Amino acid sequence: MKKLVVIALGGNAIKQAHEKGTVEEQFANVAETCDQLVQMNAMGYKMIITHGNGPQAGNLLIQQEEANTLVPAQPMDVVGSMTQGQIGYMFQNTLQNYFMQKGKNIPITTVVTQVLVKEDDPDFEDPSKPVGPFYTKDEALRLKEEKSYVVKEVKPNAEKSWRRVVPSPEPFEIVESNCVQALVEARAIIIASGGGGIPVMKNKDGTLEGLEAVIDKDKAGNVLAQSVNADIYLILTDVENARINYGKPDEKPLGKITVQEAEKYLEEGHFLAGSMGPKVTAAIRFVKAGGKKSIITSLSNAVNALEGKSGTIIVK
Amino acid sequence: MKKLVVIALGGNAIKQAHEKGTVEEQFANVAETCDQLVQMNAMGYKMIITHGNGPQAGNLLIQQEEANTLVPAQPMDVVGSMTQGQIGYMFQNTLQNYFMQKGKNIPITTVVTQVLVKEDDPDFEDPSKPVGPFYTKDEALRLKEEKSYVVKEVKPNAEKSWRRVVPSPEPFEIVESNCVQALVEARAIIIASGGGGIPVMKNKDGTLEGLEAVIDKDKAGNVLAQSVNADIYLILTDVENARINYGKPDEKPLGKITVQEAEKYLEEGHFLAGSMGPKVTAAIRFVKAGGKKSIITSLSNAVNALEGKSGTIIVK
Repeated sequence: MKKLVVIALGGNAIKQAHEKGTVEEQFANVAETCDQLVQMNAMGYKMIITHGNGPQAGNLLIQQEEANTLVPAQPMDVVGSMTQGQIGYMFQNTLQNYFMQKGKNIPITTVVTQVLVKEDDPDFEDPSKPVGPFYTKDEALRLKEEKSYVVKEVKPNAEKSWRRVVPSPEPFEIVESNCVQALVEARAIIIASGGGGIPVMKNKDGTLEGLEAVIDKDKAGNVLAQSVNADIYLILTDVENARINYGKPDEKPLGKITVQEAEKYLEEGHFLAGSMGPKVTAAIRFVKAGGKKSIITSLSNAVNALEGKSGTIIVK
Repeated sequence: MKKLVVIALGGNAIKQAHEKGTVEEQFANVAETCDQLVQMNAMGYKMIITHGNGPQAGNLLIQQEEANTLVPAQPMDVVGSMTQGQIGYMFQNTLQNYFMQKGKNIPITTVVTQVLVKEDDPDFEDPSKPVGPFYTKDEALRLKEEKSYVVKEVKPNAEKSWRRVVPSPEPFEIVESNCVQALVEARAIIIASGGGGIPVMKNKDGTLEGLEAVIDKDKAGNVLAQSVNADIYLILTDVENARINYGKPDEKPLGKITVQEAEKYLEEGHFLAGSMGPKVTAAIRFVKAGGKKSIITSLSNAVNALEGKSGTIIVK
């Protein structure tokens, strides 16, 4: 039986921090990423790919705002769905092209995905996730007034130091997991839950309603991996290993560790809240829920890490 | 065996002509459309939904242009993929909510879809499809110079009478048809080939490359319907019937006709080129390729037409 791996790709897999995000730049990054994915396919892994969407959603939010006197801006759930189409297309086109050149005919597609969160998530009380453009204090306060945005100063001393912040609630369920499962069974490669999924909450009548929020894509990736009984959850970021005692003389990269060790390090505060923290949290959750192993490593070490030669590997 | 119907939805299923396209307007239209779709499900039909994206792509093109000094505008293939995510999300969310309230658990999702066209399609020589905002002559000629756009005067005597025109090549193949098929077999309702699909051509090395073009969604819907061996191809628009001798004393709505009759009327020029023409063409192609019947009718008559009580029905 081929092993099923869910791969969570960081922002750098699609757009480098120094880039503006032209289509050429993005397709070039995606091609580099797909080179690793194609090697995983050759190693015999079945794959589901999930990805961040911060820069793409950010650009769409800027475009919406610049044109808001001409055409109505769409809310964040809709913007999220747009980036799922956009990034999904780039990956499925690029992957298909790799396989076509090798004479392989593999079904590949993107599944537009909603992810269920809870209405009473504490993050709705005190939103934490900055999104979209930077504003001056005046602009920020005007948006607060006009659109009821929650705004915070996130980059003190800069000319434009304010941003809108939105809730980042915990993900609980992948609404379309049955569709993803059907495609896994059809031996497809699937791109799903892009940008952490479109956040929806359940109303009292059972209907799902889109929210102005952003779900952490690594946490949503874990929920996805659990929902399809994946064997491995592979989180790709810009460093080869998670590290403890970061910036101290006894700083140490983590190799193969148990889920108990990972939990201890997490509790001790070794990992940054907005960065390595949620990745380690998601990796722990996957193994505790019965997954064989979680891996955190860099994009270029993905294949090595699957062979056990690199990365931070969390096992039972 | 349940019959499989591919349903092509016109622009009015998502955004009415007089509306600006706010999220509330669009969800309200989608809800009205889904009311018909839910009835079809109750009648026992398996369904694949495809849809236009003109107003949504148009709004995105305006937003991209307004913000083009701040963030890079994306090309039309990418914009098309964004609208597939956007419109797909609205349909799958709304459909899921209808079924949830009836206690039905039906897998529903959107498949991001590329559609193959031929590089030597004559429309690449003389593009015919207007897209995006209207321009003054000066603006249009500047865009022609700067971006190599093909521009045409489309609304003489208006202040802004020019638009960009892009090719509208013939669709030949649904790249992701195997994924759509797998989801049909899993008894899912699928939204696919939105906006006529993302147009791609095959390069000499076999790779697929996105194009600045727009595929007619009714023609692409036929290719989709053929690729999954659908029984019925249902094209929903804003009129109950196709008509012959339009505007003349002997004007007549068409009911049940043979594919030969339909071809004769098409050749005689009874149908408008940019409007009913491609719908009748797509409907004819489906039946000639072995489909049981094609139907052209209005959204509110969809259920009636499936029961043979309304619409223009083309059979062998």
